[in-house]
Amino acid sequence: MKIELEQFRVLPGETIDLIQRSTTVLPLCKSDKHYAERLQRHVNHLSTLQQLLYADNRHAVLLIFQAMDAAGKDGAIKHVMSGVNPQGCQVFSFKHPSDAELQHDFLWRTTRDLPERGRIGIFNRSYYEEVLIVRVHRNILLSEGVPSPLLGGNGTNPDIWKGRYRSIVDLEDHLHANGTRIIKFFLHLSKEEQRKRFLERIDDPNKNWKFSAADIAERKFWPKYMKAYEQCLSATSTLNSPWYIVPADEKNSSRLIVSEIVLHTLESMNLAPPKANVARLRELKAIRAQLAR
Amino acid sequence: MKIELEQFRVLPGETIDLIQRSTTVLPLCKSDKHYAERLQRHVNHLSTLQQLLYADNRHAVLLIFQAMDAAGKDGAIKHVMSGVNPQGCQVFSFKHPSDAELQHDFLWRTTRDLPERGRIGIFNRSYYEEVLIVRVHRNILLSEGVPSPLLGGNGTNPDIWKGRYRSIVDLEDHLHANGTRIIKFFLHLSKEEQRKRFLERIDDPNKNWKFSAADIAERKFWPKYMKAYEQCLSATSTLNSPWYIVPADEKNSSRLIVSEIVLHTLESMNLAPPKANVARLRELKAIRAQLAR
Repeated sequence: MKIELEQFRVLPGETIDLIQRSTTVLPLCKSDKHYAERLQRHVNHLSTLQQLLYADNRHAVLLIFQAMDAAGKDGAIKHVMSGVNPQGCQVFSFKHPSDAELQHDFLWRTTRDLPERGRIGIFNRSYYEEVLIVRVHRNILLSEGVPSPLLGGNGTNPDIWKGRYRSIVDLEDHLHANGTRIIKFFLHLSKEEQRKRFLERIDDPNKNWKFSAADIAERKFWPKYMKAYEQCLSATSTLNSPWYIVPADEKNSSRLIVSEIVLHTLESMNLAPPKANVARLRELKAIRAQLAR
Repeated sequence: MKIELEQFRVLPGETIDLIQRSTTVLPLCKSDKHYAERLQRHVNHLSTLQQLLYADNRHAVLLIFQAMDAAGKDGAIKHVMSGVNPQGCQVFSFKHPSDAELQHDFLWRTTRDLPERGRIGIFNRSYYEEVLIVRVHRNILLSEGVPSPLLGGNGTNPDIWKGRYRSIVDLEDHLHANGTRIIKFFLHLSKEEQRKRFLERIDDPNKNWKFSAADIAERKFWPKYMKAYEQCLSATSTLNSPWYIVPADEKNSSRLIVSEIVLHTLESMNLAPPKANVARLRELKAIRAQLAR
C-alpha cells in the first residue's frame, strides 16, 4: 500500500488537536515479513542516497525525533538508520543539560552537534525540549538562568514561548538557507500504549534496567505535554523544515513512515557527485599517464 | 576456514619489517557469496554485542584505522559497521588539523572525540598521524609550534618520536584503565595494489572527484612511510591496546579479518546488562502495581 505522506505533515500555523490525530494507521503491509522486506528496501535505498549526499557535499540532513517516553524514538533510529554507513551518520541524544551548557543560550549545546555537509545528523531529543519539558515544568525554566524580563518575574510570561519558537524558526531558516535540510518527527503515542510498553519493560529482565520511577511520574503531566506539543508543532512547522506527526502505537508502521519521509526528502534534493570540468579531466589524464608508466 | 587472529597482532616491542609481512592472505572463503554471508553473520553478531556494550555501560570501544591511501579504511568501516545501530557508533575522520587545533598539544583534538561509555568510536586516521605523516614531512612538524628543545632546533631530534610514542602509550594505558578498549588496525597495502586502485578511481566518473594529484605525490615517500609505520607499530602495540597488521590487497579478506578481531575483543569483555538487586526489584514491583491499576 502506498503511504500518503502529506497526511502526516503539519502545515505552517495549522491548528493541531492531538486527540483528533490518530496514534494508529491502517496496516501498510500484509504481514510482519512484508514490513521487514519493505523496510529493508528503504534502508538499502537510503544507504545509496547517503553516499550521494556525501559525494555531492553541498547539503547536510538533520532528523529530529521528539516524543513521549517509550514512543519508539530509539527503535526508529535503529531500524531506519542501521544499514547506513556510520561514517555518514551521526546520532546525538540530549539529556539534561550540564551546568556548563546552561551557561549558554538554549540553542548553543545542540548547535555544536549539527551535522557537517554530506552527513545525516540525528537528534534524539533536541532544542525542542526547551519548549516542551521546560514548558511543562516551570521550575526547570526558573533554574536556567534566563534574564528576568523574559521570564515575567516568575516564569509566567507567555511571550517567552513565542520568543523561543521565533529563535528556533530563525535558526532553522538560516540552516536551510545554508544547505541543511531539517525533518522533524513527532512520534505520536497514546497514553494507553505507553502504559503497555512500560509494563513490558518492567517484565523483561533485559530491559528493566532502563526504567525509572521518574518515567511514570511524567504520565501525570500528559495533557500538559500534549498542549505544549500542539503549540510547538503549529508554531515551528515550516515549508522548508516541516514537522510530521507519525502515528506510533504500531512500531512497524511508524518506522516505515519515517523511512519513507526521509527517502522522499533525500530524493527531492537532486543529489549528484561533482562533475569533472575540462581542466579537471586534463589533470586526471596527466595523473593517469604518470601512474600507468 | 577459521581465521587465526594472532598472526596479525603486533607484540609489544616486536621488530616489524613490513616488506616481510604479506599484503595478501590465502582465500578465507570459497566464493564472494560466502564472503558476503560470513561478513553478514559477523555484522549481526556485532550489532547484538554493541547493544550489550550499551546496556552494560561500563566500557567504550575505540577502533583506530591507519593506512596508506586507498587501502580500504572507508570501505572496512562501511562494511563492518553498517548494520550496527548508529546511535551506538560514532565515526570521526581526522584530516589536516585546523589552526585552532594546532594551538593545543597533539593529542588534544582527537581526545574530544573519544567514545563515551557504551559506544563504539571509530577513528578514521587519528593521533597516529602525528608520528606518521608528520615524521615523513618534517615541514609539518616545524609548522606545529612545538617547543624548540623537543625539535632539536630543526626537527632532527630523534627523541621527539620516542616522546610522542610515550605520550600515546600513556594515554592509551589511561583510557584502558578507565574502561576504553582500544584496537588499532594497520591496513597493509602493497604499492602496486595502490597503483591499481588509483587507476580504477580515475577511470570511474562516480569516483574520480575524490582523487587529487597530492594523492600520488605521496607515493614517492612510500619507503619513508613504511619505516615510520614499522617503528610506530613496534613502539605502540601493547597487550591492552594492540595493533593488528591486516593484509589489505584483497578487500573481502581484510574486512572479514577486521570484523572478526572486533567481535573477538567484544566477546572477551563479558558484557551484560546490569542486574536488578533486591531493592531495585522491589521498586519495579511498586511501579508495576501503580501502572497495572
